[in-house]
Amino acid sequence: MQISKGVEWAAHAAALLNGLPPGRGLKAEALARFHDVPAAYMAKQLQALSKAGIAKTSRGAHGGYRLAKPADEITLWDITAAVDGKGPAFRCTEIRQNGPCGLKPEDCKRPCQIAAAFASAEQAFRDSLTAVSLADLAGQVVKDSEPDHLLAMMNWLNAEAEPLSEKSA
Amino acid sequence: MQISKGVEWAAHAAALLNGLPPGRGLKAEALARFHDVPAAYMAKQLQALSKAGIAKTSRGAHGGYRLAKPADEITLWDITAAVDGKGPAFRCTEIRQNGPCGLKPEDCKRPCQIAAAFASAEQAFRDSLTAVSLADLAGQVVKDSEPDHLLAMMNWLNAEAEPLSEKSA
Repeated sequence: MQISKGVEWAAHAAALLNGLPPGRGLKAEALARFHDVPAAYMAKQLQALSKAGIAKTSRGAHGGYRLAKPADEITLWDITAAVDGKGPAFRCTEIRQNGPCGLKPEDCKRPCQIAAAFASAEQAFRDSLTAVSLADLAGQVVKDSEPDHLLAMMNWLNAEAEPLSEKSA
Repeated sequence: MQISKGVEWAAHAAALLNGLPPGRGLKAEALARFHDVPAAYMAKQLQALSKAGIAKTSRGAHGGYRLAKPADEITLWDITAAVDGKGPAFRCTEIRQNGPCGLKPEDCKRPCQIAAAFASAEQAFRDSLTAVSLADLAGQVVKDSEPDHLLAMMNWLNAEAEPLSEKSA
């Protein structure tokens, strides 16, 4: 089972956006620099977060990304689904309908037991990630971090955060 | 999130092997034909099941696959792990150590909150699949199937199953 690498980047980027002072945004380039990852790939994750209504960006010279809603309304599942899609990880191709003893499509209205078991397991995975909000993560990071590290992050954010113009997308 | 296509094939193949009469085996080619899937790819899944101790094969002219242990000792997680690996789906690259505010490796002995949340979600996924044995699946298939379909499967298995030679791998 594999989760796209972009999910890690998007989750860390969202967590950083949560630390922004009010009315300020961060350029994709700054988010990439903070995490020392390629700018184009970070931009792709930010676009996915925007499309999913998790982040938003302001246009123009003073553009920048910020969260589109409060951190306690954004879950780790929302971020995962934004980047990796909401589709099932187990793709049932209905092979029970194949071959010499294949079932007829009309006898396959219910999912087969194998597909149903994977659907339950994936629901458990989603439920677990849905129970963790960006606010939970941020609270835990603050609790676990050394004061010097938090101060360095705040200073970096204050130096890099752009005042936002009115127009946003 | 994605699960290899081979997991579906391996799960269905293992379920079919569970229906074999005692002391008989099925060739990879017959398993591929039953499911109408490419023989080489089915053979690959069967090799993965063998490597994981879920299936075994007899060498020689009368070779064939059968389950290596009772169906109630084989879980859907065992089959998934055999084909898709046991490694984590979320691959943490420790990007918290990157960039201008990167943490020192010695301050990262515990997983970060994001990686920990994914580890919990993946454990929930594994636990759910571990709770489903091949015997459970087989029982449910028998319960859900029309008698004619079960009879057709039994007839097919009886016609295709090979008597096993002594040597097995």
